[in-house]
Amino acid sequence: MTVPLGFTAAGVAAGIKPSGAHDLTVVVADAPAVAAAMFTVNRFPAAPVLVSREHLSGSPLARAVVINSGGANAGTGPSGLDDARAMAAHVATALNGDPTETLVCSTGTIGTHLPMNRIVAGIDDALALLARGPEADTAAARGIMTTDSVPKQADAAGDGFRVGGIAKGAGMIRPDMATMLAVMTTDAAVDAPSLRDALRTAVDRSFHELNIDGCASTNDTVILLASGASGVTPAPEDLTAVVGSVARDLAHQMAADAEGAERVVTIDVSGAADDAHARSMGRAIADSALVRAAFYGGDPNWGRLAGALGAGPVAFDPARLTIGFDGVVVARDGVALDHDEEALVARLAKGDFTVQVVVGDGPGRASVMTTDLTPAYVVFNGERS
Amino acid sequence: MTVPLGFTAAGVAAGIKPSGAHDLTVVVADAPAVAAAMFTVNRFPAAPVLVSREHLSGSPLARAVVINSGGANAGTGPSGLDDARAMAAHVATALNGDPTETLVCSTGTIGTHLPMNRIVAGIDDALALLARGPEADTAAARGIMTTDSVPKQADAAGDGFRVGGIAKGAGMIRPDMATMLAVMTTDAAVDAPSLRDALRTAVDRSFHELNIDGCASTNDTVILLASGASGVTPAPEDLTAVVGSVARDLAHQMAADAEGAERVVTIDVSGAADDAHARSMGRAIADSALVRAAFYGGDPNWGRLAGALGAGPVAFDPARLTIGFDGVVVARDGVALDHDEEALVARLAKGDFTVQVVVGDGPGRASVMTTDLTPAYVVFNGERS
Repeated sequence: MTVPLGFTAAGVAAGIKPSGAHDLTVVVADAPAVAAAMFTVNRFPAAPVLVSREHLSGSPLARAVVINSGGANAGTGPSGLDDARAMAAHVATALNGDPTETLVCSTGTIGTHLPMNRIVAGIDDALALLARGPEADTAAARGIMTTDSVPKQADAAGDGFRVGGIAKGAGMIRPDMATMLAVMTTDAAVDAPSLRDALRTAVDRSFHELNIDGCASTNDTVILLASGASGVTPAPEDLTAVVGSVARDLAHQMAADAEGAERVVTIDVSGAADDAHARSMGRAIADSALVRAAFYGGDPNWGRLAGALGAGPVAFDPARLTIGFDGVVVARDGVALDHDEEALVARLAKGDFTVQVVVGDGPGRASVMTTDLTPAYVVFNGERS
Repeated sequence: MTVPLGFTAAGVAAGIKPSGAHDLTVVVADAPAVAAAMFTVNRFPAAPVLVSREHLSGSPLARAVVINSGGANAGTGPSGLDDARAMAAHVATALNGDPTETLVCSTGTIGTHLPMNRIVAGIDDALALLARGPEADTAAARGIMTTDSVPKQADAAGDGFRVGGIAKGAGMIRPDMATMLAVMTTDAAVDAPSLRDALRTAVDRSFHELNIDGCASTNDTVILLASGASGVTPAPEDLTAVVGSVARDLAHQMAADAEGAERVVTIDVSGAADDAHARSMGRAIADSALVRAAFYGGDPNWGRLAGALGAGPVAFDPARLTIGFDGVVVARDGVALDHDEEALVARLAKGDFTVQVVVGDGPGRASVMTTDLTPAYVVFNGERS
């Protein structure tokens, strides 16, 4: 988070969560940073999503991001909007800045109002603790956790610039909808359109290729701030590559930590008309509860994959469909292929694995990450919040 | 099945299933009947789907339907098509009819070839046993079962005509993709376009409102045969109503028997722009693993419903969203509403329940049936086939 030059961060326990765990994070740029963000497409968006989108629609500059866990501020009506605006305003006042230069995120239960007195006090505490370095980064990553078992951080360096980030889990989040939050920073010197392009491409290849519950939540947000403090303006493809590397790392950490999950399964789709089609096909497979139950059982059940793919939105020629597990082809040209089933099952029993799905000879490819669907997931998410 | 005049049926154990259970059913019309059918939209359709579609694309008449369980004949390539055609031809030869007047269905594992010698012998056995009455109907219903725990039959009468049907389960079917098969008969005297209209509307209000795994299988087929033997030509709305009643009854039996399911949950959506929008919204809710896990826990978790609805394909105004469980409103105009939570939870603990989702003031409504997602489902579907 603070590996790139020009940022400080802090995370505190503001008392929003009954457990007393960290639940509030502030990230502050030394000076207004160029900002890009992508928000949930859910038609029932949370108040902070509406407010952050509004703040970015004016000027693409942001001085701070404030994030609370312990409450999603969704399904909270007009007073929820007031609360999200008050969070931004309180940060802005302390920083002598403009409220529209603060972005706001929340995660937690839908339908309950935030305890604003604790949030305001927590913001003051966090601003007093702003720092650079590993301890500050870890505290910031902790402040956005819900049922994550570990904080999620990543960083990477390009030629003269750095990218860092924190994230919280996607999928299988109790008590309500999954929320995926990620805040990334870079010290590259980039204008807003270039930053948006880099973020969009990086997200397409990372968070958009992570599909666990098949559901865009009310609060999903990814933010990228560029301080310019390195003085280096990377080539667009270099920036995209480094941002993408951090985003993919964070997405993989989310999958590995998804509750109830025992395996991360990567679905490599190739031969599609283009990358977007390949991604859509991979997501159709990862959307299937039947497929994910087979993953849980370590069952190389290609019929379920073919069925899920066939039920998806992208047309393909069944006679050219080839499916493999960890490189062992089990169906070719739409028909079962002889293979050593026992050896393959023994191999899959070991944990994470990869599925290869070839749908034709087009140039499009995608690598979609998901997890298995386990009894523990159902028990966990069946408990009342 | 044989309650309407003009049909005989039989079901036998042909030895396709290792268990020795019934696995082959034949339904025969005394004379070529008017036929309508709806097939899966899955892009990886099974061979019998392709063959039946082809047979109906010529003349809309059918003399017989032959159905096997124990093997889906999907993912079987050109020889699978040959097998499906051979099933039709064998029936046609015995009946001195045309192969194109036989419709074929299969259900079971994807990717394995049918044991054609057993199927041919089973067809001969079944044709020798063709009969009318409850025993024949039950045997026919048994012959199409996969993991259904009970045979599924329904019938209803209109003014001077009758409709009957058999079906096999949707969703949660081991070992492969869910398959939903239903064959219905009527003795109404109807032309093909009217029969198709009645079937389409009835299916929209029944099987299309049943959503358990959110996935059209490779083999889904619904067939309706009209013998005309009653001599009665009902008004279109009367025919649709009676066919719809039988179809809805069969769909409810499927939901109640879905493996691993502990509850049937009915999602009543109203206030949408039209019925198709309402249905789509109900299905978006029923598609969510998180929502169905909450159903398992008997948790009136409206936030998950709102989130799943928001992630769906139909736009709505969050500020007008109202959600209730068994008539107890828990959120109104997009915001939580005070209610007696403990009383509601105690009520939901009893078993099946209904969810009310009001999305505006349009005339569109739908009633979507689903089941809860249970640990037993995951364990069951995680076992290797």
